[in-house]
Amino acid sequence: VPETRLDLARIRAARRVIDPVFLDTPLYRCEALEPALGCRVSIKLETANPVRSFKGRGTEIVASLLAGTGSRAMVCASAGNLGQALAWSGRGRGLDVMVVASRRASVAKLDRIRALGARLELVDGDFDVARERAAAVAQYDGIRLVEDSADIETCEGAATIGLELADTVPSFDAVLIALGGGALATGVGHVVKVLAPEVEVICVQPLGAPAMTLSWRQRRVVTTESTSTIADGVAGRRPIPDVLDDLLLVADDAVLVREASIIAGMRMLLEHAGLVVEPSAALGVAAILEDRDRFAGRHVVTIVCGSNVDIDDYHRWVGRPTLARWDLT
Amino acid sequence: VPETRLDLARIRAARRVIDPVFLDTPLYRCEALEPALGCRVSIKLETANPVRSFKGRGTEIVASLLAGTGSRAMVCASAGNLGQALAWSGRGRGLDVMVVASRRASVAKLDRIRALGARLELVDGDFDVARERAAAVAQYDGIRLVEDSADIETCEGAATIGLELADTVPSFDAVLIALGGGALATGVGHVVKVLAPEVEVICVQPLGAPAMTLSWRQRRVVTTESTSTIADGVAGRRPIPDVLDDLLLVADDAVLVREASIIAGMRMLLEHAGLVVEPSAALGVAAILEDRDRFAGRHVVTIVCGSNVDIDDYHRWVGRPTLARWDLT
Repeated sequence: VPETRLDLARIRAARRVIDPVFLDTPLYRCEALEPALGCRVSIKLETANPVRSFKGRGTEIVASLLAGTGSRAMVCASAGNLGQALAWSGRGRGLDVMVVASRRASVAKLDRIRALGARLELVDGDFDVARERAAAVAQYDGIRLVEDSADIETCEGAATIGLELADTVPSFDAVLIALGGGALATGVGHVVKVLAPEVEVICVQPLGAPAMTLSWRQRRVVTTESTSTIADGVAGRRPIPDVLDDLLLVADDAVLVREASIIAGMRMLLEHAGLVVEPSAALGVAAILEDRDRFAGRHVVTIVCGSNVDIDDYHRWVGRPTLARWDLT
Repeated sequence: VPETRLDLARIRAARRVIDPVFLDTPLYRCEALEPALGCRVSIKLETANPVRSFKGRGTEIVASLLAGTGSRAMVCASAGNLGQALAWSGRGRGLDVMVVASRRASVAKLDRIRALGARLELVDGDFDVARERAAAVAQYDGIRLVEDSADIETCEGAATIGLELADTVPSFDAVLIALGGGALATGVGHVVKVLAPEVEVICVQPLGAPAMTLSWRQRRVVTTESTSTIADGVAGRRPIPDVLDDLLLVADDAVLVREASIIAGMRMLLEHAGLVVEPSAALGVAAILEDRDRFAGRHVVTIVCGSNVDIDDYHRWVGRPTLARWDLT
């Protein structure tokens, strides 16, 4: 058992406090994707729930624990998905939620955070600037700071996906996991390494936001000056040391993919699987596209972790000029 | 208990022979749809499985029963979804599957039927012509004819959705069900009327393919000369008497919607729910759009029954000319 911060018994117990709407999500083979990818592909779909991402699993644990104390408020920094999920989980328990986000965050995500009743503060700068601001707010207001990937509950929530994967029959050879702050990768990775150690745990990050992957490769925290990717959900510059330590114990590999591959992955998921996904959720398919030989003939699970996109951006990314012409005739 | 051909104990038993990949599908409230629709909306999502429609529930029952006999082959007529599902269920049990479809059927659906290993025969004419041909093939070859909605297994499969809906907490006020041959409506309707009789069962059909709705209203089989709708999955001309009899016992209403409303529904499901759906799966949202007053403030479940679309057709239907212009600059 890898000695991460995670513990299987706690993860199993966590399932009991998570609203079932986030649990036991679809897991199915998608043969229509396979000719183009050259391997068996199964999809773990984390988008068919009230917040359209896997983040509800973790925020449910956070909010249920907080509701059991005297505390009535919490704050998080978010690229958009954690904020939505925390707003949803907090609202259901009468907790005040504040979300700090970058002014450049996805409009669709920010709109949903507001609609779910959270207070939203926008900052100039990127996600890591929002993180600093959220920490300052928490200290000043004396409320709970929810830190994605640093807070063990966010990792345990993600880890419940691992429990569902480990139950899979037939088993699979590799799981492709979007890598951002690391909650998804360390959570799922821990469970897979405990219950199905023969399965390869492969993290995927954009070349334009490689900090955690570079850190994993060098076995020490590597920060970057900036990020440049459409995959807003995984665009961090400053890895968290504790999370990196866990990742070093559970990840078999961490790979970087090009923006063009992420877009190709989004388009394939639309055309062959009928799925609208946000860029982060296409990282797994992008990784297969960039290294078909590695996966040839194997059975690969890719976690489709979110579908919150600005639809205009989405159309621009996956749109088809030939059809555009047709529309104008 | 309505005296239909369906029986709750048999439906419960049927769950045990259906591959779990088709069961316990996502059911979740979609608040982002609500401002535009004026009511609480929950989605029952039947697209996140290997055949991207609910039809696998029924074909699993058919195929498991047939595999228990000496018979090794079956044939069905299909607009595309039943054929895919039967091909999938048959392949898993070593059964030969033949599908008869209209030459005008969705190319995406026909491609998937072939890819799943079924023999495909195309006929000139529409779905009801394919039905006649499938019956002739079955008689000539002496193999099992699988008739959607007529065969009780197809209704029982659909009815397992009803079991999952009836377990819902909090309960809901109405369920909107796409109406074609009637398996989905009679199956779900029967269970809802037994377990949650206060819930309104509302069937929705396109104005361009109204045969079953007209039959329900006149309480006798009414056929039409032709159909004209993009909702290929529900475009039948000749209702089956036994199915109509059941529908008369379980449906509280049957409404007809315009093509423009179906397209508006597809667009809303894309933009506010992130879901690509086939036209039949947008009938419920279309019904709300056409009669907001009826549903105002109520909690409505709509069954998103399939997502098999030709992506070019889909783009044409829901596409945005403004973006098309953008793409050309």
